[in-house]
Amino acid sequence: MLMDDMGWGDLGINGDPARETPNLDAMAREGMLFTDFYTANPLCSPSRASLLTGRLPIRNGFYTDNIHARNSYTPQEIVGGISDWEILLPELLAENGYRNKIVGKWHLGHQKQYLPLRHGFHEFFGSTNCHFGPYDNKSRPNIAFFRDDHMIGRYFENIKIDKNQQISDLSQSYIKEAINFITTQSDPFFLYWTPDSLHAPTFRSVPYIGSSSRSSSYGDALRELDAGIGKILDTIKQNQTLANNTFVFFTSDNGAALVSTTDAGSNGPLLCGKQTTFEGGVREPAIGWWPSRIPHSTVSRQSATIMDLFRTIFSITDIPMPIDREYDSYDLSPVLFANKRIDTNIYYYRGNQLMAVRNGDYKSHFWTFTNPLEQFKTGINFCPANFIKSITTHALTNYTQSPKLFHMIRDPGERYPIPENSIEYKSVIHKYINLYNKHISNTIPGKPLLNWCDKAVMHWSPPGCEALNMCLPVPQSKPYRCDWPH
Amino acid sequence: MLMDDMGWGDLGINGDPARETPNLDAMAREGMLFTDFYTANPLCSPSRASLLTGRLPIRNGFYTDNIHARNSYTPQEIVGGISDWEILLPELLAENGYRNKIVGKWHLGHQKQYLPLRHGFHEFFGSTNCHFGPYDNKSRPNIAFFRDDHMIGRYFENIKIDKNQQISDLSQSYIKEAINFITTQSDPFFLYWTPDSLHAPTFRSVPYIGSSSRSSSYGDALRELDAGIGKILDTIKQNQTLANNTFVFFTSDNGAALVSTTDAGSNGPLLCGKQTTFEGGVREPAIGWWPSRIPHSTVSRQSATIMDLFRTIFSITDIPMPIDREYDSYDLSPVLFANKRIDTNIYYYRGNQLMAVRNGDYKSHFWTFTNPLEQFKTGINFCPANFIKSITTHALTNYTQSPKLFHMIRDPGERYPIPENSIEYKSVIHKYINLYNKHISNTIPGKPLLNWCDKAVMHWSPPGCEALNMCLPVPQSKPYRCDWPH
Ligand SMILES: [Ca+2]
Ligand SMILES: [Ca+2]
Repeated sequence: MLMDDMGWGDLGINGDPARETPNLDAMAREGMLFTDFYTANPLCSPSRASLLTGRLPIRNGFYTDNIHARNSYTPQEIVGGISDWEILLPELLAENGYRNKIVGKWHLGHQKQYLPLRHGFHEFFGSTNCHFGPYDNKSRPNIAFFRDDHMIGRYFENIKIDKNQQISDLSQSYIKEAINFITTQSDPFFLYWTPDSLHAPTFRSVPYIGSSSRSSSYGDALRELDAGIGKILDTIKQNQTLANNTFVFFTSDNGAALVSTTDAGSNGPLLCGKQTTFEGGVREPAIGWWPSRIPHSTVSRQSATIMDLFRTIFSITDIPMPIDREYDSYDLSPVLFANKRIDTNIYYYRGNQLMAVRNGDYKSHFWTFTNPLEQFKTGINFCPANFIKSITTHALTNYTQSPKLFHMIRDPGERYPIPENSIEYKSVIHKYINLYNKHISNTIPGKPLLNWCDKAVMHWSPPGCEALNMCLPVPQSKPYRCDWPH
Repeated sequence: MLMDDMGWGDLGINGDPARETPNLDAMAREGMLFTDFYTANPLCSPSRASLLTGRLPIRNGFYTDNIHARNSYTPQEIVGGISDWEILLPELLAENGYRNKIVGKWHLGHQKQYLPLRHGFHEFFGSTNCHFGPYDNKSRPNIAFFRDDHMIGRYFENIKIDKNQQISDLSQSYIKEAINFITTQSDPFFLYWTPDSLHAPTFRSVPYIGSSSRSSSYGDALRELDAGIGKILDTIKQNQTLANNTFVFFTSDNGAALVSTTDAGSNGPLLCGKQTTFEGGVREPAIGWWPSRIPHSTVSRQSATIMDLFRTIFSITDIPMPIDREYDSYDLSPVLFANKRIDTNIYYYRGNQLMAVRNGDYKSHFWTFTNPLEQFKTGINFCPANFIKSITTHALTNYTQSPKLFHMIRDPGERYPIPENSIEYKSVIHKYINLYNKHISNTIPGKPLLNWCDKAVMHWSPPGCEALNMCLPVPQSKPYRCDWPH
């Protein structure tokens, strides 16, 4: 279960004062809450590519080098998408008898060759892109919505979203689709459930309007997904075989998009939000659930990432992993099943640049960046209310000669850089400099897949448009370097 | 149980990533957690005066008007202290057969006439002031430490504190004193347990050094108090009569003192810290515990204050309250025992100035202030990492003509003032303007007690010094207006 732009602080059990997540809080009581769980990147597409490949974006290609250290993703102009060479989680599972379904947002490319059914999934119900729009279908087509390998409509046309009132039934469809899938499988299955109603502009179905204490569309959408997760878990619990054999992991693809102010979630005490390599950009709400195997009501302080789910799932299923490539994935089985702690390195990237490294209690920033000053001045703010001198910088700032060091337990908000002349700094920093240098010299970047854009690849005529009579004329191809503004 | 400078975000159950409070978290599971509980003032002395009188500092006199809207407290130069006219919680309880004891920091004046045994307490073990020092006993005496009505030593002399290593056994003494009192009472009792080891400079006893994940003195001190609270509750639980008849309330006197950086607690997602009328200054961790009467594992979003404990206790004990004075105290019994919600107004003061008002989901700031710019430039920062334009102002800023409005559930961090031209603002603001005006016109300020200072009143020769041969020469009295810098 992968949320879209949900923040660490949105979980009631992570201290959200409004306590909008009773079902997730119950899930945590029945399982293991992770306080220090990370995504692989502070943005949707690279994070999702990393979840499914077990590899950092710098390896699987979900980054750009058009500009140094810039975030990139897969808007409908993007030419690139998930590489055929990558071996995705569902591909390996499919080879071993699993039935795989994705419900929700794919975001690994929308051209035919990138669609989920070409990459290990047997079923798909959702979209390849965010629910942006509506568009005029002339300068820009509305985003296609898919059933398996073909479109079944477009957002704002067949898939209704009332953008002004922030209303849609889509999350309800995703909840039903999940429950229906779970209750009809005879083989082992992998469900990748990834609704995107928490991504601005957020939406909720009519019965949830006003359901949140926050009295906001975001709050209502959170209530709706929380209730849906409760239903999905109940479905599993009601069947003894399912209950005994189903591992559920809940997390989010990146931190709360504070740039969207009140149409966004909360990162609690963490610094900044989506788009940044501060904790608010990459530390996620995370719960492991498997009542018969994971100790109940446990809180793990283990530093881990979304990529670890890759190796963990193959460890649990006893499926051998490929040995022809590098992984950025630890087996979390000892953590999940015995509440042990393992030594992990967390690498924080922005585009093609390794920005920071965490190991154990410390995190060191080698580069800092929020967004360019000119952009910030127009009101685009990834760190509303946050200002930390020399840290929340509006220039990409190189600290490789004197890295910034933070104690992540004492100071999870990254407020107080440890003074460089302190004993603590001097006794610790070399480890992080070594980790940084070693990672860079040992990491062979994959080919960047998010450099090129082309209006011709947009959702003019996706597979299936003919049957619906919804094909639109495709303009002439004019590839250009995508502009990544931050 | 009143902590000193503990922050809202320090409770594990309020989302502290380090989860340093397992016993308090368990207390919350056995009782009711309040998410929106306030102190009466962002500073020690006024907050404590309000707890024990059920009245705002503006009424009980724990404020200054030397300068407009400035914080004040009771350092050892202070001439003032709690007024004889005030009727304190323990006074009313004593009249009704209760045995009352204060363990820890008094902070309502240290001259003879202000001591706890003159104001309703039968026993006192602690100090009248903070554990500041050590001093030279020439220009400034070390702070006296009391047993009942007489000093039994001084901090840094008889009451050992290793300031460099931040070590003291004092919290252990306070824990033992509490348990001993609880287990030896035959009459009903009131224990006011208020250790001050979380007030910077924090300290902990040797066994707790390194006990916290934070690896800090503050973290260790928090672990030590949490463990002590566990022991105290166990003591109550082990005796069926005590268990059935003891109401325990846990909170803190003001928000985390972020000015002390890593020697301070956490306010979680809340704005700024101690000294301010932003949420980080005044919203507190709070737990009500009475397993036989308070529903277990409940979270109450009720807005309430420390002053409400006054009326609540007299409601529970069926003791009539004085009718000759105004109270700022609501009876929380329906909240505690039936999880109901009542309509409350929260008034946020700084010195003699009403700064903000909360009712229901909204809070409106009529004045904003952090600290003077000149002081801020010397490094004194009540809002580290926080900067919100027009809100975290370094000048006392008058917004009475266009009050700032925040939705406290959607935006507990007070990041996003609701636009003045929005329907939401227009439909809501008048209520708050009325509350502000009505409160000011209906409130008759008490005589300000914290205006005058005098070196002659310092701890030169407290009661009991003769027996210890610890009297110091008292300098000539030279009263002067206290200087309150922020
Ligand atoms: Ca996202
Ligand atoms: Ca205090």
